[in-house]
Amino acid sequence: MLKIDRAKFDPIEKSDFPEIVERKGIGHPDSVCDAAADACSRALCRYYFENFGRYYHHNVDKAALVGGISKPELGGGLIIEPEYFLIVGRAINQIMRENKLEYIPVAPICLDACRQVVGNVFRNIDMTSNNHIQFDYAVRPGSIDLTGVFEESDAMEQIPLANDTSFGVGYAPFSDVEKITLEAENLLNSGAFKDKCPASGEDIKVMVQRVDKNVDITVCGAMVSKYCNDKDAYVNATNQMKDAVLDLAVKIIPEKNCTCSVNVGDNVEAGLLYLTITGTSAEAGDDGEVGRGNRSNGLITPCRTMSLEAVCGKNPINHVGKIYNVLSTEIAREIVEKGQGDIIEAHVKLLSQIGRPITDPWVNSISLIPADNVSFDSIKKIAEEVSRNRLSQEYLIDLRERLIAGKVQVF
Amino acid sequence: MLKIDRAKFDPIEKSDFPEIVERKGIGHPDSVCDAAADACSRALCRYYFENFGRYYHHNVDKAALVGGISKPELGGGLIIEPEYFLIVGRAINQIMRENKLEYIPVAPICLDACRQVVGNVFRNIDMTSNNHIQFDYAVRPGSIDLTGVFEESDAMEQIPLANDTSFGVGYAPFSDVEKITLEAENLLNSGAFKDKCPASGEDIKVMVQRVDKNVDITVCGAMVSKYCNDKDAYVNATNQMKDAVLDLAVKIIPEKNCTCSVNVGDNVEAGLLYLTITGTSAEAGDDGEVGRGNRSNGLITPCRTMSLEAVCGKNPINHVGKIYNVLSTEIAREIVEKGQGDIIEAHVKLLSQIGRPITDPWVNSISLIPADNVSFDSIKKIAEEVSRNRLSQEYLIDLRERLIAGKVQVF
Amino acid sequence: MLKIDRAKFDPIEKSDFPEIVERKGIGHPDSVCDAAADACSRALCRYYFENFGRYYHHNVDKAALVGGISKPELGGGLIIEPEYFLIVGRAINQIMRENKLEYIPVAPICLDACRQVVGNVFRNIDMTSNNHIQFDYAVRPGSIDLTGVFEESDAMEQIPLANDTSFGVGYAPFSDVEKITLEAENLLNSGAFKDKCPASGEDIKVMVQRVDKNVDITVCGAMVSKYCNDKDAYVNATNQMKDAVLDLAVKIIPEKNCTCSVNVGDNVEAGLLYLTITGTSAEAGDDGEVGRGNRSNGLITPCRTMSLEAVCGKNPINHVGKIYNVLSTEIAREIVEKGQGDIIEAHVKLLSQIGRPITDPWVNSISLIPADNVSFDSIKKIAEEVSRNRLSQEYLIDLRERLIAGKVQVF
Amino acid sequence: MLKIDRAKFDPIEKSDFPEIVERKGIGHPDSVCDAAADACSRALCRYYFENFGRYYHHNVDKAALVGGISKPELGGGLIIEPEYFLIVGRAINQIMRENKLEYIPVAPICLDACRQVVGNVFRNIDMTSNNHIQFDYAVRPGSIDLTGVFEESDAMEQIPLANDTSFGVGYAPFSDVEKITLEAENLLNSGAFKDKCPASGEDIKVMVQRVDKNVDITVCGAMVSKYCNDKDAYVNATNQMKDAVLDLAVKIIPEKNCTCSVNVGDNVEAGLLYLTITGTSAEAGDDGEVGRGNRSNGLITPCRTMSLEAVCGKNPINHVGKIYNVLSTEIAREIVEKGQGDIIEAHVKLLSQIGRPITDPWVNSISLIPADNVSFDSIKKIAEEVSRNRLSQEYLIDLRERLIAGKVQVF
Repeated sequence: MLKIDRAKFDPIEKSDFPEIVERKGIGHPDSVCDAAADACSRALCRYYFENFGRYYHHNVDKAALVGGISKPELGGGLIIEPEYFLIVGRAINQIMRENKLEYIPVAPICLDACRQVVGNVFRNIDMTSNNHIQFDYAVRPGSIDLTGVFEESDAMEQIPLANDTSFGVGYAPFSDVEKITLEAENLLNSGAFKDKCPASGEDIKVMVQRVDKNVDITVCGAMVSKYCNDKDAYVNATNQMKDAVLDLAVKIIPEKNCTCSVNVGDNVEAGLLYLTITGTSAEAGDDGEVGRGNRSNGLITPCRTMSLEAVCGKNPINHVGKIYNVLSTEIAREIVEKGQGDIIEAHVKLLSQIGRPITDPWVNSISLIPADNVSFDSIKKIAEEVSRNRLSQEYLIDLRERLIAGKVQVF
Repeated sequence: MLKIDRAKFDPIEKSDFPEIVERKGIGHPDSVCDAAADACSRALCRYYFENFGRYYHHNVDKAALVGGISKPELGGGLIIEPEYFLIVGRAINQIMRENKLEYIPVAPICLDACRQVVGNVFRNIDMTSNNHIQFDYAVRPGSIDLTGVFEESDAMEQIPLANDTSFGVGYAPFSDVEKITLEAENLLNSGAFKDKCPASGEDIKVMVQRVDKNVDITVCGAMVSKYCNDKDAYVNATNQMKDAVLDLAVKIIPEKNCTCSVNVGDNVEAGLLYLTITGTSAEAGDDGEVGRGNRSNGLITPCRTMSLEAVCGKNPINHVGKIYNVLSTEIAREIVEKGQGDIIEAHVKLLSQIGRPITDPWVNSISLIPADNVSFDSIKKIAEEVSRNRLSQEYLIDLRERLIAGKVQVF
Repeated sequence: MLKIDRAKFDPIEKSDFPEIVERKGIGHPDSVCDAAADACSRALCRYYFENFGRYYHHNVDKAALVGGISKPELGGGLIIEPEYFLIVGRAINQIMRENKLEYIPVAPICLDACRQVVGNVFRNIDMTSNNHIQFDYAVRPGSIDLTGVFEESDAMEQIPLANDTSFGVGYAPFSDVEKITLEAENLLNSGAFKDKCPASGEDIKVMVQRVDKNVDITVCGAMVSKYCNDKDAYVNATNQMKDAVLDLAVKIIPEKNCTCSVNVGDNVEAGLLYLTITGTSAEAGDDGEVGRGNRSNGLITPCRTMSLEAVCGKNPINHVGKIYNVLSTEIAREIVEKGQGDIIEAHVKLLSQIGRPITDPWVNSISLIPADNVSFDSIKKIAEEVSRNRLSQEYLIDLRERLIAGKVQVF
Repeated sequence: MLKIDRAKFDPIEKSDFPEIVERKGIGHPDSVCDAAADACSRALCRYYFENFGRYYHHNVDKAALVGGISKPELGGGLIIEPEYFLIVGRAINQIMRENKLEYIPVAPICLDACRQVVGNVFRNIDMTSNNHIQFDYAVRPGSIDLTGVFEESDAMEQIPLANDTSFGVGYAPFSDVEKITLEAENLLNSGAFKDKCPASGEDIKVMVQRVDKNVDITVCGAMVSKYCNDKDAYVNATNQMKDAVLDLAVKIIPEKNCTCSVNVGDNVEAGLLYLTITGTSAEAGDDGEVGRGNRSNGLITPCRTMSLEAVCGKNPINHVGKIYNVLSTEIAREIVEKGQGDIIEAHVKLLSQIGRPITDPWVNSISLIPADNVSFDSIKKIAEEVSRNRLSQEYLIDLRERLIAGKVQVF
């Protein structure tokens, strides 16, 4: 049931409620959980496929990152208790093949995936010991019931059936505020910037607010104590971050007036600094879960329609909670691109029904905002075509492969 | 900055996108996490106050409910591995008073709170052993930094300062679909219904979809195996649930045409039933986290603006992520009530700024839909008055006390 | 290879090195581990037999009782962190029967067994919550290799083959010091004494030293704070313990001169008391393991030959580390009893060889001390007969059943 | 109370009960626990001393090594669940200094110590991930009571007071059987041998039995699957082990007739081999604890008097359970050495009393077996002198330093 209409609301750039956008950077405890959970799903997919020639049921979309206890100081400090990361979920762990039980090493697969994520994200976490972080798993086999649906639709040449009644939503394009939010974090966590400013840790939260043309960018970044031997070094580093963000803003959203503050909670004189040893607040009691941070497009956008579904850790075969959120964003982006300027905004909502082929959503609703003087009918056709194409089996298998390869943004 | 305007969108009852609403019942793994996390916060508040005459910093808004492994059968079955519940967060656990360290028994407080929640929710979980569920805790002291803000604003006669820049959203009134979603779950999990239909477990998910006047209610309920000695008993019980929901619908949303299905995934003939021993899917591998289920008004409403904030487990003193979500709903409801029919819908958005008094949101935006022939100016005044009153210190302290007493819906 | 000789050493009552004997009471952390581990083995045996008509391999002879943190005070006090009990071992958890996997609920079986032990031992531990103690399990399936030996010898009509090369040792009778050590603890932990003196907790250690006829009994007992409202109550209770022990000594070892001290580490004036809330030192950081306390005859006797084998938690079918220790004591006792005064001491050593029937030890060595004027040959015959009888299949099956029924002292 | 007498028993070499000696190699689960626990104590000592100029109370003499689940195969295999190592104990973790709390990072200190031990012991455990083994800690502060005794006697210039009433025992020299038991394991786990025979894992148990001159050496060694591509390779490796042991026996105990068997439980034809991926049985469900393996002289000797005390993990300052066991062996060895052939055997028993200076045991008993034609009086003097010297404060401080430096055998 494809339904395409003209959006009743104003484009985001013209709405007069303050636009608010947030991104929890890759080192934020919630983002770490997201990344690790998704890495587990991808690793399980690869293992199943390499060893059994097909995918098996799994859902590892829960985790707890228990923050540690630390006493950072200018120039160093002490980790008193390590962080503790627990991956939680379900995965088939034994398969009867020719009357013989074969075992899937779910625990090492998941532990490895989680470790690699943490090792890749944090430059200053000691991964040669467990002094900074411990890894644990609670991934158990699922109930027979739940796996039933999966079994029937597993063959790759078949169209998988939705595992649930679930809702996905996407839109395009990003507003200026959304752009700067995402790109500022990307920049501050890039290798190039870290080379210049090693004192900036990976746990960076970017909150951006816009009223009319005025954009306030607030960056909250855990600083790495060993690179801050004194307060001056600390202040220099936060200033570097601020300057980098403002430079970027001038480039990518030149039409807005931007300000930027970094670590507004600090009181430098009183010695209240946002210091960490490892570059993340998780070292000192800030905790994380899967699905509590960025949506699958990388942002938290309370002014947009959002799905509560946690995308990370869900299987990319038949879990519509994952597939439809990613897919609706891809559809919206393709529509806008194909519109070549004729389409100001595209909003896509997909609703599955349990047991229905994922190529055939129960509700498939697209809202478009045409550019001035553009006829709705002309852009409607574009949307129709894009939607049909993106919901084809070929495209969904391609999307699955990209998800498994880790090539799609999911948080 | 209070801003009241006329909403640009249609009332929900007139929107033509399928209205979708969901409620995860009290026995759903995510709801159990929400309930337990909030119970921990309330118990900590009481302990701090009783022993120190004030509240101390805490934030226990994370948890993992790791599902167990079970083999339910008609008439009974076997729990193979218990569920495992881990409460995660931060709470001050030692206080220096008159040069002596005093200890707060954070672990027993939290373990107790979690146990009581689980014991109260589930009629068929064995709480006299750990065979069905284990309880664990990872609640550690927070960083000095984070607690700093709290300290300064702790006195009850003072106005607490917001602990974060955070967004809360609320609306009123409930649509018909929202009403039936919430009330159906309340009914099915009421003592009266359980007395009549003990076979229905507490893990009940209600999903409702509306197109025009047609409302489809889908109930997904874990059935309790010991009360289902055969398939007939199972089918009878699910039929009882269906009939109860349809009876309720006739009463509370008489203008809609309702259908109801229970456990659509079943294949009774093939023996595929949604059977559990304890009444929750968590016994067999379905897992839960805090903040992944219902919003603070009890519902998941993808067609409404939602906040991603987890409300449960946050402290009710200065954690705007909790306070503003609950408060905005209370404001919206009061506005609609005071409007005595003149106000079709009220939508409230509150945005805090870290360090700003919680009585003074940085953004306070109210959108109203007046009834036909009602002047916007007349209802604007009502909203203004309600907003001012609800953001007073008296009201916020009253709200805090109600939150601590557990008298406010938070999930 | 049965070998019976005359002992070369003096009877213990005549040895002139100070005789030292110790008993860790039932509430000592090590004893709790022993009791819980053995209860798990017995419960597994029962489950296997009831559900499969035979016993399966298991070995749950490891555990950790992690002590809690508490702040006891006269009249009460605070538990700050609960104890944590982890049962560790191996047990077959799935069995292929008629091409279908059947699951053994190893976790609930073990958790239940451990809980019951703790609940039975401690009068003042709160078992309706996890505030005082948490229970956890790490009982995993064993390697295929190890279970191999077991499989072949499982049938009850067959003679099990030893699972290991292992050494068991026993002797009889108890010396006076051994008697008073064992009986003093039994008395102090009896229901009758606890009724009279509820302030005495179950964690009681009795150390007895003898030089010639002088016997010093040192009792170290955790006192229960809620029954000690002031120092007087505390002192009264410890005096009650002392008097009870001295009364007992007069009755059962009248020929010795006994003194008794209770809690010698106390400094009552300075307020240094051995106070606990729950009656065990495990509430405040004293930890326990399996096999670190009493030998299978209930005592620690450095002046006697002892086996290091942990008896508790081992399976009673083919685990000679358990069977031979218990059996050698039973043989020694029967020999002395049958001797009707002619045999002063009997010492039995049994050595198995892996894969050899347990009825046929590789080494079976008995040393006897005859009474004055008794010929060695006459008592040798008694020993021969007893040994043959006790190593019969009938007796070993009887012993197994008594072990599974919990009727044999094992720690 | 020093008491020196002539032993009443025969020298071990002349006793006619089968002499039985065992050594659990460094890779045995119990030995790993011993090593790790002791490493934690040493690391804590160093930390306390470096940061506070003194030692603080700790006792980390408990641990659980929970075996993993694996499926080794010739040439490789699969780790399905990692081992789990839990260190358990007590250690002071915060110290009030000049009105400021200072924190001791007990968790990282202990985790690090345990990791290093495991990494050093096992050549084939992957320490760059947690796929083979996880590390955890449950080291909590002790009760105030227990630490009290410690505080008073902490200064290094003072003589520490015994923390407990405890018994230590030692003897010299090693019998031939004891020598070959210890040295065979040392050899098989030496770098040189591993270079030649990488297929032999570190989990090696050596059991030696002697009847008269006939010595049977049974070696049970976990073989490393990746170095055993087929059965021949496996058999070659076990033969290498056998040959190495027999060669050694010829050298160090030439007067005995030795046989040696390796892995007697194997059935090579049937494919029952003692294969492991990591070189330890702990990878597949064999579990370990502290204090369940070798005594402090490196051996399990049921024919000798043994102490049940776990030496590893206890603090070397005032924990007589550790100090007196190590010391009595050192005294016995020195006596025999000083005897220059006049003393066949020396046996030392030391008994402390709680609160008594450790230089002044309550009982200090030495039994000597003089060589033929040697007068007891002459050797008695040697023993007296050695004992006096070894119980001096200087020697005890020297012993403490050697223990902290890890230079003394403790298991």
